[in-house]
Amino acid sequence: MKTFRIAPPDETIRPALQQKIDNLAKPRGSLGRLEELALRIGLIQQTLSPGLRAPENILFAADHGIVCEGVSPTPKEVTWQQTLHFVRGSGTGIGFLCRQHGFRLRVVDAGVDYDFPTGCGIVDRKVRHGTSSYLNGPAMSAEELERCLEAGAEIVGDAFADGCNVVSFGEMGATNTSSSALWMHYLCGIPLAECIGAGSGLDSEGVRHKYDILNRASENYEAGGGKGDEPQEVMARFGGFEMAMAVGGMLRAAELKMVVLVDGFIMTACILAASKLHPAVLEYAVFAHEGDERGHRRLLQAMGVSPVLSLGLRLGEGSGAVCAYPIIESAVRMLNEMESFADSNVTKYF
Amino acid sequence: MKTFRIAPPDETIRPALQQKIDNLAKPRGSLGRLEELALRIGLIQQTLSPGLRAPENILFAADHGIVCEGVSPTPKEVTWQQTLHFVRGSGTGIGFLCRQHGFRLRVVDAGVDYDFPTGCGIVDRKVRHGTSSYLNGPAMSAEELERCLEAGAEIVGDAFADGCNVVSFGEMGATNTSSSALWMHYLCGIPLAECIGAGSGLDSEGVRHKYDILNRASENYEAGGGKGDEPQEVMARFGGFEMAMAVGGMLRAAELKMVVLVDGFIMTACILAASKLHPAVLEYAVFAHEGDERGHRRLLQAMGVSPVLSLGLRLGEGSGAVCAYPIIESAVRMLNEMESFADSNVTKYF
Repeated sequence: MKTFRIAPPDETIRPALQQKIDNLAKPRGSLGRLEELALRIGLIQQTLSPGLRAPENILFAADHGIVCEGVSPTPKEVTWQQTLHFVRGSGTGIGFLCRQHGFRLRVVDAGVDYDFPTGCGIVDRKVRHGTSSYLNGPAMSAEELERCLEAGAEIVGDAFADGCNVVSFGEMGATNTSSSALWMHYLCGIPLAECIGAGSGLDSEGVRHKYDILNRASENYEAGGGKGDEPQEVMARFGGFEMAMAVGGMLRAAELKMVVLVDGFIMTACILAASKLHPAVLEYAVFAHEGDERGHRRLLQAMGVSPVLSLGLRLGEGSGAVCAYPIIESAVRMLNEMESFADSNVTKYF
Repeated sequence: MKTFRIAPPDETIRPALQQKIDNLAKPRGSLGRLEELALRIGLIQQTLSPGLRAPENILFAADHGIVCEGVSPTPKEVTWQQTLHFVRGSGTGIGFLCRQHGFRLRVVDAGVDYDFPTGCGIVDRKVRHGTSSYLNGPAMSAEELERCLEAGAEIVGDAFADGCNVVSFGEMGATNTSSSALWMHYLCGIPLAECIGAGSGLDSEGVRHKYDILNRASENYEAGGGKGDEPQEVMARFGGFEMAMAVGGMLRAAELKMVVLVDGFIMTACILAASKLHPAVLEYAVFAHEGDERGHRRLLQAMGVSPVLSLGLRLGEGSGAVCAYPIIESAVRMLNEMESFADSNVTKYF
């Protein structure tokens, strides 16, 4: 098992950070979430004047064997079509958002069932052409999970080497809300029915069918002796390659003391899994967006976190995380650009 | 009474806008609030390819005679100090946000109790050195209200002439959550106690005192025959010059078919008042932020609107509106930069 050395941020600097924030020329606490975010980022970077550099959205794509059971309204070929679209065109959802906010978009083939042309701009980390169906057995082997964690870590290392200190993760992979629901169920102990939603657009009949399939997958896992108490086992049994790579990426980002922007339901399931391996990863996380997937709100509650945005997005790709970036940037600018009462000749009234 | 000719947007274009949004290569509805905002702005601008130009935050500052009753923890001199700080330094809250998002900040002296040096960069529209206390009489005369509406309209006309088509309004004025609470009470019919909160930072004892004073002001108004059923009368009785100017600005912006970004509690009270004069102004409004002032959520509910952000800000100055700008910009970029299913060679699955 790949090891990560993730230390929680040194708390020594906290009082000085809080004092700096409280002395800015404004009613105390009046910048709300910006003040919380500034404190968090100051702690991560261990400075009273943090900075965000070379933001990246790393998007992992993969297919899932479970797709043959009809748990998603999205046809499987959309995974490769969109993955190619991310690097070829500029007209995807995540494409315009990355352009707007100055993000580099790094697209990784974690296991798409398609052979992309070489040199097309997709980072090739294909494990294989999609996971196995987890209806009756594991989606991937323990070795494949390990390979994913390592690949995710290496790619984040590349981003870091390119100067990045704030990273979001996105995904593309038809049916990955199903994997996320099962991870959530086992890693949080929340009843499966509360973890399942409409995904990219199921109707109520479709959601019922999705529940039936996932419930059978869960029963079969437990009938074979699965207890769901080993995070690696749960991840390998139900996971997608793209999700496992994101977990590795999140862990490495925390190890490197980068700010991790957590997107919607799927990425929240990933940082949940990451936190079961290394709890301190959460100290580096900023929960960016509460998505429109049923189960996401429940999961966020269970984790005791409240995202920066709630825009009802359910696109994936990292879109919610990238949308939240200007708010994170505002928090950092507040610390660096706002004057104190003393500097500004305004009567200190708090 | 100054007249405004505000026509609601022509709805003819709505189906074409909705069709364009639905044909973008993404699950239908999956960009949530961005899709709603895109529709709203497309309607305002009557185009399938809207654009945001030269955004401005117009900040009106004024003092309130009621300040002598101790309804705010902010000393009165902070109004002029901060107003000067807005144009002199770059280190205010609204200053760094405007810089971040490319907003011009136009600062207007609507009635601050201070004589600013000429040429300091503050637009001089001073009505007088602060309103009268409304404890026993009107804060301003009907003529002064009229003058405020006209001044606000003219300043927005200047912004429009400078190329601006999206405008937010901010305010600076110790005690103006008190005026807002009274406007809300009379214009929405909500019990006064539910309209009153901590403002810039009152403790519970302070909030009780604020309620007592505002309740006496309300009783005195009604004892003198006031019924609260004439918006102009309510505005003049309890208003601030900065708030009345913002109302005029909002009305003129709607007349010019500009997008109006509505900040927190005080600006929501202003657009409420504007809507009592011309209901169609609401068709041009984007509610940007749910602030931390008690009463704001209640007012938003009463108006049936749900803001884009909820960051717990209570700074005023237009800060919440400017923070929301990148989300508005994302909505416009979605319409202009995202490809359709047909353009992108992605299987149309919705």
